[in-house]
Amino acid sequence: MQIIPPYLLFIGDATDHLSIKMARGAADWCPELCVGEYRLPGCTVSTGLESVQIKEAAAKGAKTFVLGFANSGGVLDKKWLPIILEALESGMDIVSGLHDKLADFSELAEKAAQTGCQLLDIRHPTTTFKTGTGIKRSGKRLLTVGTDCSVGKMYTSLSLEKEMREQGKDVAFKATGQCGILIAGQGIAIDCVIADFISGATESLSPAAAENHWDIIEGQGSLSHPAFAGVSLGLLHGSQPDAIVICHALNRTHMRGLPESNLPSIGQTIELNLQSAKLTNPDVRIVGITIDTSSVSAEKGRSVCAEISEQFSLPCVDPLRDGTKKIVDNL
Amino acid sequence: MQIIPPYLLFIGDATDHLSIKMARGAADWCPELCVGEYRLPGCTVSTGLESVQIKEAAAKGAKTFVLGFANSGGVLDKKWLPIILEALESGMDIVSGLHDKLADFSELAEKAAQTGCQLLDIRHPTTTFKTGTGIKRSGKRLLTVGTDCSVGKMYTSLSLEKEMREQGKDVAFKATGQCGILIAGQGIAIDCVIADFISGATESLSPAAAENHWDIIEGQGSLSHPAFAGVSLGLLHGSQPDAIVICHALNRTHMRGLPESNLPSIGQTIELNLQSAKLTNPDVRIVGITIDTSSVSAEKGRSVCAEISEQFSLPCVDPLRDGTKKIVDNL
Repeated sequence: MQIIPPYLLFIGDATDHLSIKMARGAADWCPELCVGEYRLPGCTVSTGLESVQIKEAAAKGAKTFVLGFANSGGVLDKKWLPIILEALESGMDIVSGLHDKLADFSELAEKAAQTGCQLLDIRHPTTTFKTGTGIKRSGKRLLTVGTDCSVGKMYTSLSLEKEMREQGKDVAFKATGQCGILIAGQGIAIDCVIADFISGATESLSPAAAENHWDIIEGQGSLSHPAFAGVSLGLLHGSQPDAIVICHALNRTHMRGLPESNLPSIGQTIELNLQSAKLTNPDVRIVGITIDTSSVSAEKGRSVCAEISEQFSLPCVDPLRDGTKKIVDNL
Repeated sequence: MQIIPPYLLFIGDATDHLSIKMARGAADWCPELCVGEYRLPGCTVSTGLESVQIKEAAAKGAKTFVLGFANSGGVLDKKWLPIILEALESGMDIVSGLHDKLADFSELAEKAAQTGCQLLDIRHPTTTFKTGTGIKRSGKRLLTVGTDCSVGKMYTSLSLEKEMREQGKDVAFKATGQCGILIAGQGIAIDCVIADFISGATESLSPAAAENHWDIIEGQGSLSHPAFAGVSLGLLHGSQPDAIVICHALNRTHMRGLPESNLPSIGQTIELNLQSAKLTNPDVRIVGITIDTSSVSAEKGRSVCAEISEQFSLPCVDPLRDGTKKIVDNL
């Protein structure tokens, strides 16, 4: 599966900033791959990109129409079908990260067949995977892991890739979630594969490579999350990381979505991830910590990072505010 | 999904004892639910049950025709289609644990529709699950875990259930693999659910129950297996076990299927499982160890179990040779 840029980011009539996370991720990390956003009357949020209509976007060369919003349940509202049909008629592929499959709507399947456009359901892997082997592969790998879900693992990974690329290193970002897949143009939604193949799929995502090549693998979930730890562990084993970066969000009080679940400390998260990672890479080491400090001022954020850095004798940064150069320097 | 007994166990022209594991499991653990086995010329192995033809089995009341063999790849060989059609015509449901789906063969789907019989692909969950919550449920749970795959977790679980039932306890076996599902008549093939839902599916498999009720949950894989540890961890978190039993096979030298992977020790397996289980049940404890000692004499097996029992101050038995009463007494 390969998503072809440039993209038109459809945000519908969204009124919640969080619901357009996928569109915002693309606008933040690959604006050069986007011709703009397509919004409808009633929409009160924005990616910050120029507002463009479908035909106008097609004329500007847009190749892919991205459903850039989500809703709980991941349902595709039928009211969007005429709009998706218009995008198909304009020659664009369609990308969806919803649970509902585009191809299950017969009018979309027929129109896609007529126009020769692709329907890309990036939450639904189409590949068949093998089970993992744990055998050591050549090349180097860094995995971002977290105290919780949604603590900045994708942003940290992308920041590390950007910094390493700027330093002239041979590096690639390996996407494991929908938003990352959109930014990279490819990847595997690892929480959507069959449980038997979590680590095997990860092994195929980051195959043997040149000795100096680094894959920066986007982490998912947390080893301490009661719902998703299995995904995180399979991803950790399949990644066989040489280096791990711990990600944390300041002022998070409990595991995402689970008010009764306590957050692990950064120290516990380091220990648990290193211990588990050693199964497939005994030489794994932790190279840094990133903190999403957006809940406090930049000044306060920096002092928090400095404290944590001293506590663990590791570089600690907010990747959005200060970049990840300190961590790359420690690789 | 509910599998209706009695079963006719189809073992085809199998020549390998291991390839009919599913049929043997049913013959060993629920012979009273089986009318016999159906074997073809060339078949050199047996479940030990009486050999019966399809029409004869139907006349004896068989309700379900079980594809009791497996092959690497889990492919359904087209040469079996006429036989499966005959079973459908005789009014039996079909159970398959293969990767290929029965309903993907149009002749089977049509015949099933005509006859009103079910095609049950027990490796492919049909239910939609929710993600896990980790919230404590009422009732008690025991999970079997292992140093590796195929070390007797299902046999241990069934033996524990049988012993507890004989002692008059309120107990249920909860199947998480194909063979267990066949024996129990229901369950969830946990390694076949979407990765996001491993622990959530396990939570639904063992819902809140009466305070004195025990669910004996069949374990899968091993926390130390590079391919399947994610499944094992999600199953552990979703089970939130009050009690854990460690299963091990004597003289196993490496992880199943992975000659380069070392087996963890029993001590390491205890420690790792208790540590991980505490996330959803801080009061978890280990209540016993079972050893598959079939590679040595019964006498040698007993002395090995006695040594391990002393080493860990826990009951240790071969469940097939000596039953699991000692472990149940320690509950």
